[in-house]
Amino acid sequence: MINQRYYAAMGDKSVIRELAAYAAKRGEEIGEENVFNYSLGNPSVPVPQIYTDTMIRLLKEEDPIRLHSYAPTLGVESVREKVAASLRRRFGIPYEKIHIYPVSGAASALSHAMRAVGTPGQEIVIQAPFFSEYRQYVQGADLIMKVVPANFETFQIRFDEMEKAITENTAAVLLNSPCNPSGTVFTDETLTALSELLKKKSEEFGHIIFLISDEPYREIAFDGKKVPYPSHYYDHTLSCYSFSKSQSVPGERIGYIAVNPKCEMADQMTALFGQISRGIGHNGPSSLPVYTMGETIDETSDLKVYEENMNILYDAFRRLGFTVQRPGGTFYLLPKALEDDSVAFCKKALKYDLVFVPGDGFGAPGYFRVAYCVPTEKVRRSVAAIERFCAEEYGVKPNA
Amino acid sequence: MINQRYYAAMGDKSVIRELAAYAAKRGEEIGEENVFNYSLGNPSVPVPQIYTDTMIRLLKEEDPIRLHSYAPTLGVESVREKVAASLRRRFGIPYEKIHIYPVSGAASALSHAMRAVGTPGQEIVIQAPFFSEYRQYVQGADLIMKVVPANFETFQIRFDEMEKAITENTAAVLLNSPCNPSGTVFTDETLTALSELLKKKSEEFGHIIFLISDEPYREIAFDGKKVPYPSHYYDHTLSCYSFSKSQSVPGERIGYIAVNPKCEMADQMTALFGQISRGIGHNGPSSLPVYTMGETIDETSDLKVYEENMNILYDAFRRLGFTVQRPGGTFYLLPKALEDDSVAFCKKALKYDLVFVPGDGFGAPGYFRVAYCVPTEKVRRSVAAIERFCAEEYGVKPNA
Repeated sequence: MINQRYYAAMGDKSVIRELAAYAAKRGEEIGEENVFNYSLGNPSVPVPQIYTDTMIRLLKEEDPIRLHSYAPTLGVESVREKVAASLRRRFGIPYEKIHIYPVSGAASALSHAMRAVGTPGQEIVIQAPFFSEYRQYVQGADLIMKVVPANFETFQIRFDEMEKAITENTAAVLLNSPCNPSGTVFTDETLTALSELLKKKSEEFGHIIFLISDEPYREIAFDGKKVPYPSHYYDHTLSCYSFSKSQSVPGERIGYIAVNPKCEMADQMTALFGQISRGIGHNGPSSLPVYTMGETIDETSDLKVYEENMNILYDAFRRLGFTVQRPGGTFYLLPKALEDDSVAFCKKALKYDLVFVPGDGFGAPGYFRVAYCVPTEKVRRSVAAIERFCAEEYGVKPNA
Repeated sequence: MINQRYYAAMGDKSVIRELAAYAAKRGEEIGEENVFNYSLGNPSVPVPQIYTDTMIRLLKEEDPIRLHSYAPTLGVESVREKVAASLRRRFGIPYEKIHIYPVSGAASALSHAMRAVGTPGQEIVIQAPFFSEYRQYVQGADLIMKVVPANFETFQIRFDEMEKAITENTAAVLLNSPCNPSGTVFTDETLTALSELLKKKSEEFGHIIFLISDEPYREIAFDGKKVPYPSHYYDHTLSCYSFSKSQSVPGERIGYIAVNPKCEMADQMTALFGQISRGIGHNGPSSLPVYTMGETIDETSDLKVYEENMNILYDAFRRLGFTVQRPGGTFYLLPKALEDDSVAFCKKALKYDLVFVPGDGFGAPGYFRVAYCVPTEKVRRSVAAIERFCAEEYGVKPNA
């Protein structure tokens, strides 16, 4: 009568969305400006003006029938070519339009990639900590999520554990750099070692183990550094990109998958994505955002505010003696809570109108995620609340 | 290594898309205006001006962070309420926002609806002729498509065959009124009888058999008639709507599912859709089209051109002695071919730059679909080509 699998899963609600809803409700009571809502990764800086201008221009100048018409099954060719050209320029990898598949955001990209390379019952190996929604994408594709325990010292890969996790039944490793929730950028050394491991294991098991690279935070890097590009290290890489964070348009659901031209079945992979799309009724992202993507491919919002926010919060947590890694990018911090039970910790924080997300869902129990995509003046104001929270609940005072 | 199921299905290309691609290529050779491309159901009248104006206004006036931000899991509440209000006004059914789920077009609506009410291995019963992509949606949900043979006299339901087709294993009947590809509007009598049958069978088998109602052509009705609304006849109806045809925005991927408030689990159904969406990485339609939907809910393109086109072609085919039902809506005609093999018939038509789609994929072998969403002056010009085709290939001349 009703699909029991989905029905049962309805209880498995998104903790992040629930906390965000709580924060919104609390905001109605005491004023939004008084709730330090660090729950949701919704960008706090506006879309680049050229994005808005481009949309308006397309709406005014383009033939409306063409602008709003069905895209071909694999997406608008001219836009796919523009994405390929941008990636060629930026990364020096000879992508062609045949390697580019427009999708409705990173969630869609990952879901297509997993379905393409995994057969139901196979495994996707993921290094903790990881974005909590990965569970949904993996289970939705009838695959099995295998978690490599976190390295809480550096949040880099634990290769001893990763090697044990990869078996004959492994379809792909999923990597997210910079990482939600830790903010970690996987280093040149890590990616080199990962590539070697994947080559070795692919040979050992007689089939390619793919690298699914989730890259929505690629452009949000700190300290003037560049994020190493996974496809530079391993040929069988599917780069899953979304403009949600870099252009502050998460609601527009727009991104792409870029298949490394040396990847197994590189020239057929996008056709495979197209077939997957038909079966889930997805049929590509909306056309206005697609054409806009083509025109604004190399533009980003003013992203430096996230680094400013990070520095304020990182310093505040350090002064309070928290164990916390300095992030290399994203707009997340993942400090260790002041008690083992991070759910209890986050619950106590709510009393001070501080909305943090417990690390449990991210494979990091005992830690908590701080999504600092909020206005900087609010970040500054939140420091006093954090200090009061730590003093009153845990007797912890900042060091001078 | 690669999901063999999708890989194998890649050969199963969309005949419609292939013919459309052929027509585009031929257009480059002889001029687009000389190809009578009746293959693709892509609207030929522009979007209503108010749609464009609304998008521009939202882009200029709305807070960009709000406009482009993540929607809640079940969609933007204010827009869901506007859709519910419009349906209450139009159909007198007490929909509330909890019954409305925004989706990215009818393909997405149907995919969500099937996954919600069907458990893998169960059956979806569909009256032929039917939209060829239904196979993809049904198979993609791991369900089985059971086809009720066509009634070529009237294209209404064959209740003797429909009754045999519905078994204990039936999750839902899928109905498409007005119907792609026949243009048939299912009558008051048909819907009344269908409702009785579904009630009887639900009781017999001890579980609700749902009605999934695919309604993208609801606003394209001819001869001044209204299309009977399936949810008026049967409580357990999921109405799947898309603005693709009514507002000429198929590329924007925007529509909704409206759950009849008396439907089994009516108040939980949209939460179930939300759970399904997470598992396929869909996460709702793009936000700018969503907000635009809220503002333009009762607007349509100038749809009367399709009736004009239909009359020209219907009369032409009748004069040539074709067996053809007069459509009650849509922008399709489904005449009987002049030979048993409609693939061969359509192939011969290509010599005259007439692009028709064989009925085989629609469950109507021996018939062919004419999608007359093309400019009326071109429809007029095509009549001579049709007459030449019929005369030269089949020795058929028009009656006076």
